[in-house]
Amino acid sequence: MRIVVLAGGIGGARFLRGLKQAVPDDAAITVIGNTGDDIHLFGLKVCPDLDTVMYTLGGGINEEQGWGRTDETFHVKEELAAYGVGPEWFGLGDRDFATHIVRTQMLDAGYPLSAVTEALCERWKPGVRLIPMSDDRVETHVAVTLDGERRAVHFQEYWVKLRASVDAHAVVPVGAEQAKPAPGVLEAIAEADVILFPPSNPVVSVGTILAVPGIREAIAEAGVPVVGLSPIVGDAPVRGMADKVLAAVGVDSTAAAVAEHYGSGLLDGWLVDTVDAGAVERVEAAGIRCRAVPLMMSDLDATTRMACEALALAEEVRA
Amino acid sequence: MRIVVLAGGIGGARFLRGLKQAVPDDAAITVIGNTGDDIHLFGLKVCPDLDTVMYTLGGGINEEQGWGRTDETFHVKEELAAYGVGPEWFGLGDRDFATHIVRTQMLDAGYPLSAVTEALCERWKPGVRLIPMSDDRVETHVAVTLDGERRAVHFQEYWVKLRASVDAHAVVPVGAEQAKPAPGVLEAIAEADVILFPPSNPVVSVGTILAVPGIREAIAEAGVPVVGLSPIVGDAPVRGMADKVLAAVGVDSTAAAVAEHYGSGLLDGWLVDTVDAGAVERVEAAGIRCRAVPLMMSDLDATTRMACEALALAEEVRA
Repeated sequence: MRIVVLAGGIGGARFLRGLKQAVPDDAAITVIGNTGDDIHLFGLKVCPDLDTVMYTLGGGINEEQGWGRTDETFHVKEELAAYGVGPEWFGLGDRDFATHIVRTQMLDAGYPLSAVTEALCERWKPGVRLIPMSDDRVETHVAVTLDGERRAVHFQEYWVKLRASVDAHAVVPVGAEQAKPAPGVLEAIAEADVILFPPSNPVVSVGTILAVPGIREAIAEAGVPVVGLSPIVGDAPVRGMADKVLAAVGVDSTAAAVAEHYGSGLLDGWLVDTVDAGAVERVEAAGIRCRAVPLMMSDLDATTRMACEALALAEEVRA
Repeated sequence: MRIVVLAGGIGGARFLRGLKQAVPDDAAITVIGNTGDDIHLFGLKVCPDLDTVMYTLGGGINEEQGWGRTDETFHVKEELAAYGVGPEWFGLGDRDFATHIVRTQMLDAGYPLSAVTEALCERWKPGVRLIPMSDDRVETHVAVTLDGERRAVHFQEYWVKLRASVDAHAVVPVGAEQAKPAPGVLEAIAEADVILFPPSNPVVSVGTILAVPGIREAIAEAGVPVVGLSPIVGDAPVRGMADKVLAAVGVDSTAAAVAEHYGSGLLDGWLVDTVDAGAVERVEAAGIRCRAVPLMMSDLDATTRMACEALALAEEVRA
């Protein structure tokens, strides 16, 4: 069984851990990772979503916070602050810095991000094939009003520094239109038996991946079941502040609205949480097979059951 | 009083600490730092000698080892090794990494090394003006025979990895011929009241600085006392493995031979240790005023006395 998963950061990474548990050992999982929240900090290339997937599946993640490394120290960051070099709002730990140093060195040497990611994964052995959505630079910017002035900030500044405390007027994946899918992305989609959208942010994670020309089309035309899991439970994001960016694209923060946002042209099946069972009818009316199952990734077993439900729905759709 | 000091790493830095103690508060000390042992590691620009001076005078040095930062951890290095990215023989700590990250970011942004060094010193406030000998890349290579094959290695590889365990056939400051003195270097020399060579390595520290076209000439023509302190005490280097690189340039490891190597065209005065009092006559015969005084920098007081002796000898020469 060949499975393709479009993943953002924490939600995607945790779902993948359950998926690995749910499938037979010979299943091949390809993860297409969001790079729209990549950022250059201190001259280094930081890829938060790719790293969260890599660290989570490779056993190096800080379990409590869901991102960054375990057993982490922050001496480099302390020293950078002592030099007056910011930003201070982005929490890079010493162990994490090493990843960005290796990545930047390889990129500077001319390797594309996909090759660099593969090299980093040789250490972490995540048990999946992790491919960035694109080797080209795509950077998600968010239009906001700050101090009465309208401006665009990097997604990380919106998410981490501002904690999404102001409304997002628009979310723009800058560079996406000119970006090409990374080598292997379209091939993996074409060869997939099933395609999954984990409960990642539908706008700035999955949405950004779909914004790379060719990817959405390849998924729609793959002719295999495409099943998603709602990141919205009981009209609120399970974690993060997805409602803010959903509002920016005119989508209500409900499980049904997100399914309709993806649309039946893309999505064949959709899982909502049991508290949103009332949404099933609306989603099915939109032409998307829908089931209500527990969607809280409270532990690995619960997450594994979610992955099983997604695969079961895919088989139902296929039949 | 305006003093110019040509400094390498540990020896130069420790001497400078004594010199600062020895002079009145209104004395202006300009340090011309060796950059021949600079190295690119992990895509970052590392300037060991400049940093040793900066950390030592700024209170951030690891006192016991004489280089690197105090309260240091090595998590970045551990992680780089886990990625299989070397070299592992160069000991960069987490706090030290921050310096190289800031420096590299500024260099990549187009600032010359001299401006970067000034910016870094704004934090450390070393109490001296620290200028790299050149903004141009100069890299000291050492010709050695390894496994029967003659090859050139970076000075750091010779010094740190090989621990100078093989003979140096030649020491070449690659790029020196094309290098220009950094802004301020020649001006500081021209305006100096006295010029000092601390007990730094005469080949790979002071010698490399003198190899930048214009610096040796400016010192010789400055018309002010030039006084040096022997790094060789009792026919052996006080620390480091200076004898190895002295042999490569055909100079005996004796206090007198080093003075003659600099020569009376450059040097007006030379301090040897009391154990080398027998060398005074030979040095003076070479046209260089010489005194025998204790030259072990065992503590700050002893080092301060050495600096006083050097300044006294300079006044003697001037008179």
